[in-house]
Parts: sequence; C-alpha cells; structure tokens
Amino acid sequence: MPVPDALLQRLAEVADLAHAAAVLEWDQETYMPPGGAEARGRQVATLRRFAHERFVDERVGEWIEAGTAESDLDAALLRVTARDWRRATLLPSRLVSEKAEASARAKGAWKAAREADSFELFAPHLERILALAREEADLVRPLVAEERGPGYAPSGADARYDALLDAFEPGASASGVAAVFAELREGLVPLVAAVAGTEPPDDACLRQPFDADAQWAFGLDVAQQLGYSLDHGRQDRSAHPFTTAFGATDVRITTRVDPDFFPTAFFSTIHEAGHGIYEQGFAPELAGTPLADGASLGVHESQSRLYENLVARSAPFWTWAYPMLEARFPHLQDVPRDAFVRAVNRVEPSLIRVEADELTYHLHVLLRFELERAMLSGDLAVSDLPGAWNERMTESFGIAPPTDADGCLQDIHWSLGAVGYFPTYTLGTLMSAQLWTAADADLGGLDAQMERGEFDPLLGWLREHVHRWGRAKTAGQILRDATGSDLDAGPWLTYAREKVQRLYGVGA
Amino acid sequence: MPVPDALLQRLAEVADLAHAAAVLEWDQETYMPPGGAEARGRQVATLRRFAHERFVDERVGEWIEAGTAESDLDAALLRVTARDWRRATLLPSRLVSEKAEASARAKGAWKAAREADSFELFAPHLERILALAREEADLVRPLVAEERGPGYAPSGADARYDALLDAFEPGASASGVAAVFAELREGLVPLVAAVAGTEPPDDACLRQPFDADAQWAFGLDVAQQLGYSLDHGRQDRSAHPFTTAFGATDVRITTRVDPDFFPTAFFSTIHEAGHGIYEQGFAPELAGTPLADGASLGVHESQSRLYENLVARSAPFWTWAYPMLEARFPHLQDVPRDAFVRAVNRVEPSLIRVEADELTYHLHVLLRFELERAMLSGDLAVSDLPGAWNERMTESFGIAPPTDADGCLQDIHWSLGAVGYFPTYTLGTLMSAQLWTAADADLGGLDAQMERGEFDPLLGWLREHVHRWGRAKTAGQILRDATGSDLDAGPWLTYAREKVQRLYGVGA
Repeated sequence: MPVPDALLQRLAEVADLAHAAAVLEWDQETYMPPGGAEARGRQVATLRRFAHERFVDERVGEWIEAGTAESDLDAALLRVTARDWRRATLLPSRLVSEKAEASARAKGAWKAAREADSFELFAPHLERILALAREEADLVRPLVAEERGPGYAPSGADARYDALLDAFEPGASASGVAAVFAELREGLVPLVAAVAGTEPPDDACLRQPFDADAQWAFGLDVAQQLGYSLDHGRQDRSAHPFTTAFGATDVRITTRVDPDFFPTAFFSTIHEAGHGIYEQGFAPELAGTPLADGASLGVHESQSRLYENLVARSAPFWTWAYPMLEARFPHLQDVPRDAFVRAVNRVEPSLIRVEADELTYHLHVLLRFELERAMLSGDLAVSDLPGAWNERMTESFGIAPPTDADGCLQDIHWSLGAVGYFPTYTLGTLMSAQLWTAADADLGGLDAQMERGEFDPLLGWLREHVHRWGRAKTAGQILRDATGSDLDAGPWLTYAREKVQRLYGVGA
Repeated sequence: MPVPDALLQRLAEVADLAHAAAVLEWDQETYMPPGGAEARGRQVATLRRFAHERFVDERVGEWIEAGTAESDLDAALLRVTARDWRRATLLPSRLVSEKAEASARAKGAWKAAREADSFELFAPHLERILALAREEADLVRPLVAEERGPGYAPSGADARYDALLDAFEPGASASGVAAVFAELREGLVPLVAAVAGTEPPDDACLRQPFDADAQWAFGLDVAQQLGYSLDHGRQDRSAHPFTTAFGATDVRITTRVDPDFFPTAFFSTIHEAGHGIYEQGFAPELAGTPLADGASLGVHESQSRLYENLVARSAPFWTWAYPMLEARFPHLQDVPRDAFVRAVNRVEPSLIRVEADELTYHLHVLLRFELERAMLSGDLAVSDLPGAWNERMTESFGIAPPTDADGCLQDIHWSLGAVGYFPTYTLGTLMSAQLWTAADADLGGLDAQMERGEFDPLLGWLREHVHRWGRAKTAGQILRDATGSDLDAGPWLTYAREKVQRLYGVGA
C-alpha cells in the first residue's frame, strides 16, 4: 500500500495542533494583554500535549511500517516521519516532564543569577540540565548510530553530543563540526586581528534619530522586494524578533525598533524575512506533513544570514537601496553611501553574542560549542565554567567580561535545555556562503543584479535548490545538490576576506 | 464523592481547546494575512472537533453521575455540565456534519442571493436549514421538557421552537417570548408613531470628519472608565465588531471606525465593552468550567445594551463626557451638548436592523421572531417569506424594502443555522432596563453618578448581581434575585417613554 490515508490524516491533525499552538505563542509575544499569560501558558501546554499524544500513538508507527513509497516524496515522508516518531517515542513521558520542569526552574534561576551576577545561583540548575541531556542522549544515541550506519564510530562523549546535536542539525557530528570550526578559527582569528589594527569606521550616522514608522516601512518594503510575501505573512512588534509559521501560507515575522539606532530594526527585519522567505517557499504538497519544516536549524539560519549579511550588508545592495533610504531619511543625504556601508559593517570585538558583528560573532559560537561539549563530556566541571569562559574570551577577543552576567550567563539557551544548539548559528552562516557562491556561479553576477534591485533570480534559485524541499532533503543533500560540496568553511572565509580587504584595506 | 477531579481536568482541557480556537478565530478577523484563510479554517475545525470529542466522551457522563455537590457552586457546575453534555450527546455526528455542510452552502448561497437580489437562490437552502432545525429540535425537545418539569406543556410547534431557543436562551419559551413581545409592541408602536410626527433632530454634527485615531482613543478611554480592563483585554479593528474571550483574563473587543460618522466606532466600542466587562467579571473560581460563560445570550446582550444605550446614549453621561469629546474634536465646540444628545438618539424607521435606532430596532426583531416561528411550524412557506416580510415592514414601519437584499436577505443568521437566535437581542434589551431600574433604586441615583463620571458603583452592582455568576445562575434566577421580577417589558417601555418625552417632547 502507498502512504496510508490514516497516517496522512493523523499528521495533518498533528500539524493543525502544532500550528494552533504557534498562533497562541505568536499572540503571546505580540498582542496578548498582560493578565492573559497564566491561562495562555495552560492553553499552549494543552495543545502541545495533544499534538504529542496524537503523534506518539503506536498506530502511527504501524502506519509508517505499512506504507511503501511510490514516489521520492513518499519516501522522504516515510523516512522523516519514522525518524521523528522513533525519537519521540524513545523518551519516556517521565523524562519529558522532568525536562520541562528542570527548564522552567532553570529559566527562573538564570534570570535571578543574571540580575544578581551570581553564577552560583544558576550552577545547580545547569548541572541538572546537563544530567537530563546526558540521559536523553543515551536513549537517543542507538537510533542516531543506526541511522548513520556502520561507518559511524564516535567517541563515547561525542556520541552523546551527536545525539543532542542531531535534534537541531540532523546528520551533523561533534567531530565534523569541530573540524570545520577549526578551519574557520584558523582563517578568522588573523582576519579579526588585522581589522583590529585599523581605525574603526565611524558609525555616528547610524546613531541618530530615525523615525520609527519610516524605519518600519523601509524594512518591510525591502523585505517584500527580496521575496517576503505579505499575502502569506505579516510583521509585528515584539521584544525579541522571531519568525513563526502556521503553514507556508501564513508565515509571520516580528521585529523591534530602536528610534536612535538604524541597524536594530532593519537587519533584524531582513534576518527574519530570510527565515520567512524560506518557510513561505515550501512546496504546497508538503503541507500538513512533517516535511513542511526547515531541513535543519543550520539550513534555516543559512537563509536568514544570506539575506541579512550577503545581501543587505553588501555594497551592491546599498547601491540600489541607499537612494530609497536617503529619501525616507533626508538627514542621511550628507552621509556618503560608502561611509554608510562601512558603518553597517563595523567589526569590533565585544562581549555579547547577539550584539556582535558579522565576523566576531562566530568566535562567540565557537567558544560556546567548545564549552558545552566539554561540560557534557565531564571534561569541564560546571563550577569551572566562568573561569574557562573568561579565559577563552581573553584568548579570542582580548577582552574578558567584567561580570558573569556579561559572560557565561548572557544566553538563555542552556536554561531552556538546548544543548547542541549553538553550533547551528555558525553552520548556517557557512552554508549561506556556500549557497551564495553556487548561486552566483549559476546566475552569473549576483552583485550586478543587486545593484539593479533584481532579487527574483536569487529567490528563484533558492526556491529551487533549498526552499521547496523542506525536509524532503537533508541539509547535507541540499548542500551537495546545490553546491556540489559538503559543509565547508572555505567559501565563507573567502567572502569575509574579500569584504575586509574592500572595507578595511587589510588582509589576513 | 465531590465533583471528580477527572471531570474538572477534562472540562479544563475542553475549555483550553475552545479558547485556543477562539484565539485563532480572533486572529482570522483581525491580523491574519489573506492567504492564510484555508489553513486556518482547517486548524479551527480540528480544535473544535477535539473539544467536542473530549466533551461527549461517555466517561464525562459517568463522572457527572458520580459527582455530588458539596456547595452551591458544585451543584451549578454539575447541573450546567450535565445539561451541556446531554444536549451535545443527543445530536448524532451525522446531523452535526449535515448542519455544518448545509450552513456552509447556505452562507455562500446567501451571499450570492443578496448580490443578485434573488431570494430564489437562497430559498432551497433556507428550506434545508429549517428541516435540519426541526430534526434537531425533535431530538432535543424531550430533554427540554424534562428540565422544565410537568407544568411545561407547549403546543407541538412551539415545543420545537423552544428546543432551539433553549440553546441561546435557556429556559425561555416561544409563548413566553410572544407574550412579552406583544406587550412591548403595544407600547412601542404608538411611541414610534408619536416620534414620527415630530421634526427629526439634525444629526449633521455627527456626519463630518472625525480623526480616526482620536475616535479610537476616546472610545477606548470611555470603555476603560466604565470598567473594561486593558490588563485583561484589548481592542482591535475588524470588519464586524465582536467580543471574544480566551478566559476571563483575556477578553478582547473589536470595532470599526468610520472617519466621517462619529456613532459607528463609539457606540460599537461601548456595546462590545459591555460584553467584555461581563466576561471579565466572571468569578475566578468558574475558570476552566462551563460556568465561565454568559448565563444566556439575552443576559449577555443586556450588558452590552445597558452600557451602549442606558449609559452612553443618556443625557447625564454626556454631561460628563461631552467636554472630553469637545477637547478631542474642537469642531464640536459649536454644537450644544443637548443638540448632540438629541442627534445620537435620533429615532427613524429604517430598513436595516443593524443600522436601526434604539426604539425601532425591536420592531425588526419582533418581525423576525414571528416569521421564523411561522416558518419553523410550517404556517409560513419559505417561498412566501419575502411577501410576508414586506407586508409586516409596511405595517410596522410604514416602509417596504425595495429589494429582498434590503429585506428578508439582510441578515446572515438563518444561513448560519441560527433559528431562535433573534429574540435574544430584544430580551437582552428588556433585561437591561429591568437591571438598570433595580440598580438605580439600590444605588440611589445613577443619573447623578453618571454626571460626575462615577461608574464604579454601577459596575460593582452588576459584578455582584450579574457578572460574577456566569452560568452558575440561570437568566431567570439572575433577574429574580437582582430585580425581584421575571422578564418584563415594563421597565424598558417606561425608560423609552421618558426618553422620548424628554428628547422629543411627545408621549405615546
């Protein structure tokens, strides 16, 4: 029999429940009145529980078994659904509850620890998170090993990390990530050092009043020209920018606006629009199935970074966009375009990941990958995290955080139980440059197209090679089919070196 | 045993699902991008189906049976839940599907019939809606008869109407409604005739540009002063104003703004705020149970009409509010307050119910009640509806609609399958005056309080006598406990006569 109708119906139902939960969460971050939070938490939990229960049902496993693929799409559907189902059914509900409870407590402790600048308040919660992560990893690793076949032979510690990483970046391994990151570090550190020896660009032109409504309109206008559709999306304000989808026909982005600093709203709008363009581009036949999602967090991030950095921080983009920007903000008419482009590309070592520039950002990620990998294996004791963090910051950036709040307590991820998540930010960035290089070769001169405001060829190429597949191809397949290569730091390093040479006149 | 925990958990889960569906519907009417409609319809249907399935589960019936009331609240909970459960389980899923399908088709046909001004296009769908309504009524009427006890002995035709009416206005009967409506008509017709003999007030002051943002701010400011909380609510724009609740801690209203006609936004804001104030006022201990809902549609409407008409169309209210209005709209400074109050109380026979004034509105409702009752019983053939409609319009209003689009095709209700719904608009209005009269007596001079902008005593009285009970008291109990009377047209007629005398200088 082909893919059983009962399976398709059940998957569609689970998708409806998950999308409904996402609508409630979107509302919570955008419009919900303050007094509604408690009831909303319960409503979302109920929907998530139903979605989980309906999916882990043993009949779902039977239907997957019974199905035979009559097309590539069916094969992908059965493969991805089986993978999700096995992973979901591996975890006992006791562990799922314990994780949720530990994370809820850790989140509260993390906030308190940041406010008090006291790592000790957070340390026992991080211990607990790591212990549960190890427990989860040990349950999942046989499945991961089976999927990867007999050639897969990680060390014991890496097998655990791989099992966690696999939830975010299917198919990736700690050793593979470490190898790519080592290549990245080798190229990046001297590049950052070279920039550090130059006079930083003056970004005063970005730090002046910009009318909030005009910022909003400009960002959204550019996002639409790049390919983000308001027929199937919208933008709202929220404290932290995010993208969420209720199916490919309703993909929403949010941003925040700083009326005195231009980059905040604009680059986050374009970043989220990149995520949104991806989700709007899933092939319609994937709708209502587990295939209608990003191939991996890395692939998702490759789309946001591609639009944010390779497009919207590039000189050719501003050749097209700067006159429109000057029209909206006449006080920029005194600022030469080149000076503006240098300002939005200012590179400077800093303490906080989310505020970092395009280059030093990855040193933040590398540090986190190393430290969480060492903590998971037990090579680094949780109590030694602050010291190790500060030591590595000094090594990589030449600056050490004055407080743990600006150091190892700055990110929320670990308190959420997300161990193995950080690398995907950098993996996505590396992929973005690989994809860009391939698209540039296929389309012949993306720079010239950007200078003319032509973004449709790029969009079409990404639709064809990345977006439409959803999870029907793995991240690795997408990269190989689109670029002919596996994950590789080379294209991004080449891009970064050229940019630094052009803007700073120095090379590594 | 007391009310079983399993029952409470199940009811909370059903409430979560229903509230989640309501969030999705709210979003659909306010912010959803156009391309999201199809997926959204499926998502809402999935949530509604789950809520239904989880509620009609036979274990719910067993838990209700097993529960014994240890408090008045428990007793009300078991009574109301049993009632809902029995009604929900009486309808076979085949009938539920047929109703949904018939209504979906009827809605499309209704729109087409209105556009083509062709009742023939709608007639077969109305036939089908009525046939299904009769089938539903026959299934439900034994339950209704049982609840009302041995003294309840309606005619066969009225037993059907009662079974339908009971879904919207529990405990009400066609004969009871007809008796109250006859009394209402007797008082109202000469009153409208008396007004018709006078010069209508000039409402040109309302028909001029009013800044949309200022209208919004003024309406919402007044709504808050009356008691609508933005900690537990918010207002958004939608094509048709409505109120929706996701629990008493998140009750939202919507409105629309006409930049050239002041009453549209303001009175709909206050009307919906009245509904919203009611839902925000349910006692916290009702949360997550079927008791956290309006006692009936009539009681709900009593709160919206009370705030819209008895408060916000009254002269004492404008004594307080008019200076604020003039401050926002300086062009009103040339308009004397009395002239403004007369303008917002202009009475004039018109064709369209939703545009009707406070008095003639009820003639529209009476007409619909008579006609749907006659169609349900078979006394009026569907094909004769347009003629009967126009005849009664001429009788009641002295005007006949030039087209059926402005006549018997103007309302969406029947196409939605809502037969027995219309009377609740007028029942609510009558209740509003009964409650007002009682509050006025208890609090001693609501007019003087309104002139000073003191709305807290009124709010407190309504909280105590109406809001906090939710469905823990029936509409009849609420009225009797708060006013000492059953439903009665007298207080509203007195109010209407006094108002007409004051504003028009004539009496019935």
